[in-house]
Amino acid sequence: MKTNLNRIKKDIEELSKFNSSTEGGLTRFSLTKEDKMARDYLKGELEKLNLEIYEDPAGTLFGRKQGSDKNAKTILIGSHFDSVKNGGNFDGPAGVVMALEIMRTLDENNVSLKNSLEFVAMIEEEGGRFGSGVFGSRAMVGLVDYEQLEKNKDKDGISMAEAFRDFGFDPSKIKEAKKDKEEIKAFIELHIEQGPILEKESKDIGIVEFIVGINEFRVTISGKADHAGTTPMDMRSDAVLAASKVISKTGEYAMAENNGTVVTVGVLEVKPGAANIVAKEAVFTVDIRSKSKESIESVKAKIIKDLEKITKETATSFEISEMLNASPVEMNPSIVEMFKKSAEEIGFSYKMMLSGAGHDAMIMSQITDVGLIFVPSKDGKSHSKDEWTDYDQLQKGIELVYDTIVKLGDE
Amino acid sequence: MKTNLNRIKKDIEELSKFNSSTEGGLTRFSLTKEDKMARDYLKGELEKLNLEIYEDPAGTLFGRKQGSDKNAKTILIGSHFDSVKNGGNFDGPAGVVMALEIMRTLDENNVSLKNSLEFVAMIEEEGGRFGSGVFGSRAMVGLVDYEQLEKNKDKDGISMAEAFRDFGFDPSKIKEAKKDKEEIKAFIELHIEQGPILEKESKDIGIVEFIVGINEFRVTISGKADHAGTTPMDMRSDAVLAASKVISKTGEYAMAENNGTVVTVGVLEVKPGAANIVAKEAVFTVDIRSKSKESIESVKAKIIKDLEKITKETATSFEISEMLNASPVEMNPSIVEMFKKSAEEIGFSYKMMLSGAGHDAMIMSQITDVGLIFVPSKDGKSHSKDEWTDYDQLQKGIELVYDTIVKLGDE
Repeated sequence: MKTNLNRIKKDIEELSKFNSSTEGGLTRFSLTKEDKMARDYLKGELEKLNLEIYEDPAGTLFGRKQGSDKNAKTILIGSHFDSVKNGGNFDGPAGVVMALEIMRTLDENNVSLKNSLEFVAMIEEEGGRFGSGVFGSRAMVGLVDYEQLEKNKDKDGISMAEAFRDFGFDPSKIKEAKKDKEEIKAFIELHIEQGPILEKESKDIGIVEFIVGINEFRVTISGKADHAGTTPMDMRSDAVLAASKVISKTGEYAMAENNGTVVTVGVLEVKPGAANIVAKEAVFTVDIRSKSKESIESVKAKIIKDLEKITKETATSFEISEMLNASPVEMNPSIVEMFKKSAEEIGFSYKMMLSGAGHDAMIMSQITDVGLIFVPSKDGKSHSKDEWTDYDQLQKGIELVYDTIVKLGDE
Repeated sequence: MKTNLNRIKKDIEELSKFNSSTEGGLTRFSLTKEDKMARDYLKGELEKLNLEIYEDPAGTLFGRKQGSDKNAKTILIGSHFDSVKNGGNFDGPAGVVMALEIMRTLDENNVSLKNSLEFVAMIEEEGGRFGSGVFGSRAMVGLVDYEQLEKNKDKDGISMAEAFRDFGFDPSKIKEAKKDKEEIKAFIELHIEQGPILEKESKDIGIVEFIVGINEFRVTISGKADHAGTTPMDMRSDAVLAASKVISKTGEYAMAENNGTVVTVGVLEVKPGAANIVAKEAVFTVDIRSKSKESIESVKAKIIKDLEKITKETATSFEISEMLNASPVEMNPSIVEMFKKSAEEIGFSYKMMLSGAGHDAMIMSQITDVGLIFVPSKDGKSHSKDEWTDYDQLQKGIELVYDTIVKLGDE
């Protein structure tokens, strides 16, 4: 392989040292001392490669390699290097190390591309510090303004604007982070799968075709609090019984779509919450994800129909409030084809996949063609100290992107 | 009627003043200033009636009217005068006022009975302060020892033993609260229904035939925490989905017994409890109540069978821990017949009922014949500031017990 396993391993291990967690796992929040140290490490590596290094007002670090054709558009490659609280060493950095290692490998092999190529390392993708996720990419597509930077605060009340100023950035210039879509050819991201499929099916690479759409809503079922002993079954308005009847069907509805649609009820809270009192309220979340907008709508419609029927039968009532509604995003089909071709040529096994989580690539699709590949996650674990990808597995993903970039950048 | 509506109203209203709640409703915990004030009010009323007043080491207040036959056993009448936090004015006091008004009416009418009759006013039936319910009656049947008094503590860490000492009682003598079953003829209690049936069916009186048995257990379903987007439905171990499937059937199982059996899932807690994480744990309580031990066992067996089947299907596992298992208690059939006869003679409408809640009468059945009647609860509400029984409805219940006591005490 053209890429270098030892360098990849060293990058991941070095970056994992810039960590504020004392309880295990990696915590690297945006615009902190650990961000600064990771950023300085990346800058140091880029400086060895004769690149034009710059940062945009959203804190994204770039390393530009000028293409041979001055009129050709720029290809962006990378991911984010912030983490969740007590997360792992790969969610984010795997894609940043991909971009760094590709820059090195091009340099080492004196490969010159027609298109300019930029290393991209973003922050606050997780929203771990300021609660405002996919931040770097949102700034690049022009979705962030100064008011948001004043409004988004960390748990100590420090606004993003203040944190940017303390970090040496000028937050009033945030709109300048917006990229001109006419100048960008593509954004290519590598990420760990954060799920069990590649490992279970022993595949080297996941080639993402769609980032799923997400509809998340909160259901409140209201009944009547009654004594568990003195209220006959047919005189109750039992919010838990109603909720359980609705929730119990959700899995079947997702399976029936037969296209990878998933549904999750992860929050379920009951009031008053005593063993001898019939519940007067049950609040639960429903999170539906699918590559098909129609499937999301179909599952939601079935759940709402059940809610109507079951609350009527149980003398309860319900309310719904929508929390998130994002449409599915299709990855660029010709980039997908290039990934497949490269994998076949090199001899990597691959699987066409959905991404069930949102990523910076999802946002970047608003201004450019996007490609996203996954590498395996051990036991499907992520956002945890147990997050792991073997270095040689990560290298295969990086090698695949390298091969694809060489083709894409020289079309 | 022989009893006096104004006196009954005054008693309830006076007792409702001995209240520590500032948020609405009545809070009168045991061995507090409010207990002392209510106790002093009751003693003051008893002192007008030429009774032998005494307290046992469990804090129960007695007022004894000697019977004409020195060898005849004693009939006990009454209930408790403690409350839950922010409860109502009737749960407990209704039965204490019943006993007080009967003593007054006998005195006023110069009725002398063969049997001795004792007014009984107990504390800590609710377990509101020390978490140890039906306390007065448990002490009377010999189920309380000094070690329990040391062990049961309130939220400030004060033990029952300490509270008793501060109140002027000697907790080391707790075993002396035990009554000799050879000396007791019966215990008669009046209580509010705490349910909606009498009001809904416009009946004056509920004559209780059984206090239901209760089996309460806690179920823990264990699954695996996974990302809501990246984990396919068929690779999940979703504790909420499994729990909802089990809980959704419980109502049908209770109804199928067709004898008033009820089942309640009042507690349901989910971990980690995030909208985008498949739940790794769901803990819920199951509370099954029935007059039939077989029905309780049948419903429980069906739930356990479902747990076995559904956890297998969902790749989860379960554990059960039993919290409470009390057998159904039958009220004394000849006292039940006397209640019915009296109701018919006076012209009160009545309904034969189950008591879905435990009461002091349930415990007293271990040493003597027991009778229990209910008066209507407005909207079925109890343990709330909205708890209410119209005074004339309460009077009808008291009148019925009076009529029955005159018969029972002179057999």
